[in-house]
Amino acid sequence: MGNPAPSSLITHLRSVLPQDGSRDALITSVIPTLLQSIADVAKALQNSHHVAAAGTANTFGDDQLNVDVTAENLIREAIANCPAIATASSEEDPVERPVPHSSPNPSSSEQYTLAFDPLDGSSIIPANWTVGTILSLWDGPTALHQPPATGQVASILGVLGPRTTAIVALRIPGTDSQKTCFELALDSAPANTASWQLTRPNLTLAPESRYFAPANLRAAADDAAYMRLVTGYIARKYTLRYSGGLVPDVAHMLVKGEGVYLSPVTASSRAKLRRLYEVCPLAMVVECAGGKAVDPADGKGVLEREVGDCGERGGLVCGSAVEVERAMEGLRT
Amino acid sequence: MGNPAPSSLITHLRSVLPQDGSRDALITSVIPTLLQSIADVAKALQNSHHVAAAGTANTFGDDQLNVDVTAENLIREAIANCPAIATASSEEDPVERPVPHSSPNPSSSEQYTLAFDPLDGSSIIPANWTVGTILSLWDGPTALHQPPATGQVASILGVLGPRTTAIVALRIPGTDSQKTCFELALDSAPANTASWQLTRPNLTLAPESRYFAPANLRAAADDAAYMRLVTGYIARKYTLRYSGGLVPDVAHMLVKGEGVYLSPVTASSRAKLRRLYEVCPLAMVVECAGGKAVDPADGKGVLEREVGDCGERGGLVCGSAVEVERAMEGLRT
Repeated sequence: MGNPAPSSLITHLRSVLPQDGSRDALITSVIPTLLQSIADVAKALQNSHHVAAAGTANTFGDDQLNVDVTAENLIREAIANCPAIATASSEEDPVERPVPHSSPNPSSSEQYTLAFDPLDGSSIIPANWTVGTILSLWDGPTALHQPPATGQVASILGVLGPRTTAIVALRIPGTDSQKTCFELALDSAPANTASWQLTRPNLTLAPESRYFAPANLRAAADDAAYMRLVTGYIARKYTLRYSGGLVPDVAHMLVKGEGVYLSPVTASSRAKLRRLYEVCPLAMVVECAGGKAVDPADGKGVLEREVGDCGERGGLVCGSAVEVERAMEGLRT
Repeated sequence: MGNPAPSSLITHLRSVLPQDGSRDALITSVIPTLLQSIADVAKALQNSHHVAAAGTANTFGDDQLNVDVTAENLIREAIANCPAIATASSEEDPVERPVPHSSPNPSSSEQYTLAFDPLDGSSIIPANWTVGTILSLWDGPTALHQPPATGQVASILGVLGPRTTAIVALRIPGTDSQKTCFELALDSAPANTASWQLTRPNLTLAPESRYFAPANLRAAADDAAYMRLVTGYIARKYTLRYSGGLVPDVAHMLVKGEGVYLSPVTASSRAKLRRLYEVCPLAMVVECAGGKAVDPADGKGVLEREVGDCGERGGLVCGSAVEVERAMEGLRT
């Protein structure tokens, strides 16, 4: 796959998406715009200590807020120049609204809705751990009231670490064979031109794994099944890999090619993750890599149930398919 | 503390180190050189996917090796221009040797030994998680056969994440009141001039905590005490923060101001960490922040026992002082 120039990214997209012209705006405008916004957020985060250093140590809480707002604004600015993105909402501003564009949509056939979490993992930003940006793209003028399995066309995770990488999942409705998941890495030089390289053209999750990521672990204090599941992993010498950042935790599984991520819902600990901005985009990435993503509340596939409103919350158990099934058995007993 | 220019870093160093001229090379040459080498390693890592993309997916193991070697070489090149660093050894090349210098040491009174781990956390580099560089500076022509508590004068952790930060601990022998630990962040623009800002002038660890980082967790499968300790944290609803990278895990504690890190030694799981390149430098950072670092084998302070040879290994329990004591009680019973 070599060192594709930006034009090669488009070549790669053309090779995995319908070639009949029906997704031209997606290929030439929408995905490049979303990737550029991830590069912008990474750059803003890289210098976010300026804000921290300008105030006192105690104001870091506000500084983080500033970084969140900066990321939100950068993504809003980017999509304003992308006419095919008709509607947008975000974890910071969870209301679907038309995107104000500088020019009209030249393509009448393509119209998308973006749901995004500009900077996921606020609690680990001060420690300088890897965090992420979540971008979820839906067909049509809204993301709501349609099964994610058919409505969601793209999901992009910006992994903001020592490098800037992006995990891209694509699935075009009605063309299930054209489901794909790949990794790109941002070329950091020359400084002001974001250039993405295709580093892993085919991310896949093996059915079994020896890695586990137990989110919301405090819930195990009041839930015997979750506690038993976790101690079972330890007893069977599974490797713990859990940063507390949803994007890096799922990225780890995809790059390693295996793993199971658990964010269960228990009697005393309600669902924490946002379905529209976190659960559905992550589930789509995992399924496009051949893994499984289920709602621990009922064991059903995350992507089978529509999102009713922007604020909806849910749990998530996802990753290597057989491990997900085993984990669900453990949580049920 | 505002936005110190590079000269302000030196001003800060002068304010926390002896002002009698006895540490001038440390202040004006050694520490700036070591910080520059961290900036160099961060930059190399940022573009390390070039190597990955040039080969096939299967060669990533070798690519990682390349990044390790690149980091090793960058640090060796940097210290070649720093005459006061007389001796060096590293985790990649664990033999103490004289540093070949381009010019002689102008200061006869200052002579240091560097022990370093160029890139710690190889297993999480592919997933783009935060990793680190560990630089440990000792007084005199060798790091061996002297108690770390008096021989080690500086320990610097390069935290290579979305930002590049450095945690600097300083302790000048015979001047215990001048023990200090602070955080710097690299200003990424302008591109080719590393400029460090003082972001947290005084890192301290509270005696108690609600965060735990259980390293080598698979050892708990065969060790009832470790298993009981971990399930006890979960039952008492402590928060899990464990990335598997030694530097980010300790950096998290220092930035959060609390935490306990556990890398125990059990009957079936021998000590994994290198005392010279990992355990001693981390222990010094934790103690300079007011925390505690003990060897789980005998409960003694890590910095009380000298390093006998470069390959020596050991365990580590460190962090918030009271939590460390409680953890040691748990591991003993």
